[in-house]
Amino acid sequence: MTVKLVVLYTQPDDPDAFDEHYLGVHGPLVEQIPGVLRWEGARFVEAADQGETTYHRVAEIWFEDMETLESALATDEGKATARDYGKIAPPGSRMFIAQVD
Amino acid sequence: MTVKLVVLYTQPDDPDAFDEHYLGVHGPLVEQIPGVLRWEGARFVEAADQGETTYHRVAEIWFEDMETLESALATDEGKATARDYGKIAPPGSRMFIAQVD
Repeated sequence: MTVKLVVLYTQPDDPDAFDEHYLGVHGPLVEQIPGVLRWEGARFVEAADQGETTYHRVAEIWFEDMETLESALATDEGKATARDYGKIAPPGSRMFIAQVD
Repeated sequence: MTVKLVVLYTQPDDPDAFDEHYLGVHGPLVEQIPGVLRWEGARFVEAADQGETTYHRVAEIWFEDMETLESALATDEGKATARDYGKIAPPGSRMFIAQVD
């Protein structure tokens, strides 16, 4: 059953500097993680419910199943990506695992 | 440029009853919206950051561009889906528009 890691980044102090690192450094790290089926990043442009623009970005990384996801995060490439996440994620950013319908 | 509507549902009182309606009624409404490239629903199973399991579900609906998304939401099918969202979304649920990288 397909699962995905869903990451929600809150608003950084400098969104453009964040995106430069995100697209130039973080994305390439994600691409090196073994077992990744595909991944997608997106930048929020609007709160469609007229609420707060709580998050700056969402990223999703799809894996074949939970075992593959867990193994992937335990690899050197997974750990390097997690370290970079720790460096860039603004306070309040979140990371979840979801089972795709 | 591909855009997507990203919906985050907070925890419902009865997750299984929520999912029954979500998969049986809400999903089919989404599928009738004109201009939808694809959509994906997923149920959160874990907070990978050891934080709160703030959300129960995430749904994404992809469109070719912002104009198509806006037109889609203004159709009868888009409005029917929004009405159903209003009925089922637990308080604190969020809806955003994001530009895919």
